[in-house]
Amino acid sequence: MTGREFFTARTVADALAGFRPTLRTPVEDVPLYEALHRVPAAPVPAPAALPGFARSTVDGFAVRAADTYGASDSLPSYVDLLGAVRMGAAPTVAVRPGGCVAMPTGGVLPAGADAVVMVEYTAETMPGTIEITRPVAPGGGLVRADEDVAAGAALVPAGLPLRAPDLGLLAAAGVTLVPVHARPRVAIVSTGDEVVPPTTRSLVPGQVRDATAPALAGMVADAGGQPILAGIVDDEPGALKDRLTEVLPGADLVVVSAGSSVGARDETAGAVAAVGEIWCHGLAIKPGKPTLLADCGGIPLVGLPGNPLSALVVFGQVGVPLVWRLAGCESPPPPPSTRARLARDLASAAGRLDVVQVRVRDGVAEPLFGPSALLSVLARADGYLLVPEPATGLDAGTEVEVVLYR
Amino acid sequence: MTGREFFTARTVADALAGFRPTLRTPVEDVPLYEALHRVPAAPVPAPAALPGFARSTVDGFAVRAADTYGASDSLPSYVDLLGAVRMGAAPTVAVRPGGCVAMPTGGVLPAGADAVVMVEYTAETMPGTIEITRPVAPGGGLVRADEDVAAGAALVPAGLPLRAPDLGLLAAAGVTLVPVHARPRVAIVSTGDEVVPPTTRSLVPGQVRDATAPALAGMVADAGGQPILAGIVDDEPGALKDRLTEVLPGADLVVVSAGSSVGARDETAGAVAAVGEIWCHGLAIKPGKPTLLADCGGIPLVGLPGNPLSALVVFGQVGVPLVWRLAGCESPPPPPSTRARLARDLASAAGRLDVVQVRVRDGVAEPLFGPSALLSVLARADGYLLVPEPATGLDAGTEVEVVLYR
Repeated sequence: MTGREFFTARTVADALAGFRPTLRTPVEDVPLYEALHRVPAAPVPAPAALPGFARSTVDGFAVRAADTYGASDSLPSYVDLLGAVRMGAAPTVAVRPGGCVAMPTGGVLPAGADAVVMVEYTAETMPGTIEITRPVAPGGGLVRADEDVAAGAALVPAGLPLRAPDLGLLAAAGVTLVPVHARPRVAIVSTGDEVVPPTTRSLVPGQVRDATAPALAGMVADAGGQPILAGIVDDEPGALKDRLTEVLPGADLVVVSAGSSVGARDETAGAVAAVGEIWCHGLAIKPGKPTLLADCGGIPLVGLPGNPLSALVVFGQVGVPLVWRLAGCESPPPPPSTRARLARDLASAAGRLDVVQVRVRDGVAEPLFGPSALLSVLARADGYLLVPEPATGLDAGTEVEVVLYR
Repeated sequence: MTGREFFTARTVADALAGFRPTLRTPVEDVPLYEALHRVPAAPVPAPAALPGFARSTVDGFAVRAADTYGASDSLPSYVDLLGAVRMGAAPTVAVRPGGCVAMPTGGVLPAGADAVVMVEYTAETMPGTIEITRPVAPGGGLVRADEDVAAGAALVPAGLPLRAPDLGLLAAAGVTLVPVHARPRVAIVSTGDEVVPPTTRSLVPGQVRDATAPALAGMVADAGGQPILAGIVDDEPGALKDRLTEVLPGADLVVVSAGSSVGARDETAGAVAAVGEIWCHGLAIKPGKPTLLADCGGIPLVGLPGNPLSALVVFGQVGVPLVWRLAGCESPPPPPSTRARLARDLASAAGRLDVVQVRVRDGVAEPLFGPSALLSVLARADGYLLVPEPATGLDAGTEVEVVLYR
């Protein structure tokens, strides 16, 4: 059992700053109702001003503001009721000095009016005469025709995933096809003689079902990517290189969940070196040191450690930002998180990023330990905390930010 | 313009505690790869123990721990190399006293062995003889056959949405069909003579495109529901009641985005009262006071205020928890959030929940004001903060939790 590894180790911060593929997925038009969390490729301009007409924001009466000046309970103003505006229709009557038009919230301001007085400050004291007991300033009780968005202004910026409210604004502007980056296609290759598909009903001793690929597929989907399950490759020489050669043309990112033995890891590095250029082999992260990053003719490749916990930790730190970046998003939305007090001391090595699984109860974060071969550690965790690269540990009682799995 | 509203106003806290439909969506089996964020209807038990065999966690040699006691650099132990375990296969050789078997990480522990010594503390000094320079305790270097999960133990609990790591654990156990609650079908009905579909290319003055329905659809999808766009209903008498009667049989939750005028709101309340029982009309929330909650023969209905900003705020506070609850989840995953210092004083009324849109820059939360008729306020916001019901305001400089749109 020779073949010790010679790591070209890098810090996670180095990797995030330095391993930055320039590849971006192509732009495609998607229907508004499928655009949630997709990333616009350019700012989307408003085809016309919104709301497009001066619009009442209250139920009341459109007036000339000057006709209400000085109005009070003891000295009301009186104006003639000239008609009413109907919802969804253009006004059929204008406001002249000394006159008013009844307005529903959302109605079009009639010509001649410059304000809407709220119904609460009015009374129809005689048929056809409206008494006003409070003044309104010009522009009061309404929004201007371009107050929501001016024609040509950006409805949403480029590079940030669309949120539910953004869909509302796009709909209001009549933008029902949105140019966004295609979902990055993330090919997930599992390796290892011992790895069998999750559908395998009964195992022979030594076999394990592929847990990493389904979990990675979930993380890819959460990051807006399209997981492509590219199967399980045996440890036989050449098999991984052949599979990589097959999947690269249809992928924007390739993820290899490597075998767990030293031999299998060496095999992975060899196969990757045959199809691309290794950027680093070894990351200063715990768990997850035997991570490999490579550039395969412009397509990034992440070689993950063999055990599922380490693989998922590393993918979360370096893979997820890559998926977002491929879709044109440099600042991914933050994951949910919570503050908690650390239940016990945590030791770490300076220069290494530690990712510690924790359970959070009543504001206390309890680290979960155990062999990283155990998947149940991840499933029992509410999330994780980071012991940053410069730190040599965290003291019990420290307030920490726990990133929650969702 | 008569018809002032008589609100049966409730606090949001009352509504969350008291308006709790018992309806749950039916249980369906979904493939593992589609189960992300779905809610298991019952704990999912492990069909068998995991990993299912005592498994090495290191590269090294399976031994009887007793054979290594006292081993050191100056006084090593020597054991006979009896063979090797191959990945993914049952061992073909047992360990006897004074013997060892070469092990890859993840390999099956051979009979007779009770520990694995790491390759780092060994050397093959002569062909067939392994020198050990560090003792290992029984159980060292391995995980037990049921250490990850015992047979029959819950892999995941009921009622909490499945996260990516959970998919990994389910896959490892061979659970590839997961019994989960069906996605709640949320019928979204828009009302208002002025409201036209987002696909309407050019508007006549007074018309507005339906912005609320697409944004609500996004919020429903984020909450694990299935939005059903049930169209736009004119303000003519009876039309809304007819549409509600049509959509109720196919929905688990009905959302009506009401007309914005007082008259339209009265019309909504009348139509809802004809098909169900109104639980409250009026919520102590700003914006969003004219909210209506009703029970339509077991199917909950939420009547939202007419303007999009208020509608989305209210749906976030009372609608989203309902969607989760219908799917069997009482504790929805928290949204992303961040801490920030409030840029200015905020006034509020005691007993009312204020939802304030904010922009966050450099740790400072700047409230965004403007008529709630403006959609762009929402689109410009990074998120919102809550001024809780008992508070009469928040002072500038207060540290606040901002819930981020995602």
